[in-house]
Amino acid sequence: MTPRPVGGFEPPYYTAVFTSVRPDAPEGYAETVDHLKDLVQDMPGFLGYESARTPGGLGITVAYFRDLAGLDAWRDHPEHQAAKRHGRAHWYDSYRVHIGRVERSYGHDGD
Amino acid sequence: MTPRPVGGFEPPYYTAVFTSVRPDAPEGYAETVDHLKDLVQDMPGFLGYESARTPGGLGITVAYFRDLAGLDAWRDHPEHQAAKRHGRAHWYDSYRVHIGRVERSYGHDGD
Repeated sequence: MTPRPVGGFEPPYYTAVFTSVRPDAPEGYAETVDHLKDLVQDMPGFLGYESARTPGGLGITVAYFRDLAGLDAWRDHPEHQAAKRHGRAHWYDSYRVHIGRVERSYGHDGD
Repeated sequence: MTPRPVGGFEPPYYTAVFTSVRPDAPEGYAETVDHLKDLVQDMPGFLGYESARTPGGLGITVAYFRDLAGLDAWRDHPEHQAAKRHGRAHWYDSYRVHIGRVERSYGHDGD
């Protein structure tokens, strides 16, 4: 299946941009991410999620939410919090999070 | 050199999140991106740039600007505009841009 950018949401909406550097495939990582992807689908206001990682390099993940309340509820979800503590301790060399309000969006679909 | 997430900027600032799907290494792509990276460094308000691409999958690029005026000036830069026209016509299967105002940021550096 060819991936496709998520989007086409009516502004305003909110994004959490998560940029990180970590070793390839640390222990337990893939299972945790799969579980979090399942959990986040059920959060109120969740719009979408996408992720990219250059092998040996930087990873960027973006989560899209309708409002800040939904994004904050996800930040505070106990299983998400536990995964973040574990990630800080064991997985990530460094990371940064940028929480933003999207005011404009546009796109192009080659089909 | 190990990459590291850019950031540590004082909010508010602006991000352009660009998500795209394209074939690997289309003709002229690398040269154009290198040239644009040089150009954007000189734009007023430019804070940083980072990019990740999963092989065969999605690419995500984030540009950081101090204010919306700087980001708009970059959007309207003639060489950037020409590259975007070329990219739409020849490189990208699909893409989406999200322009947002960052209101919170935090990070972790494992060193």
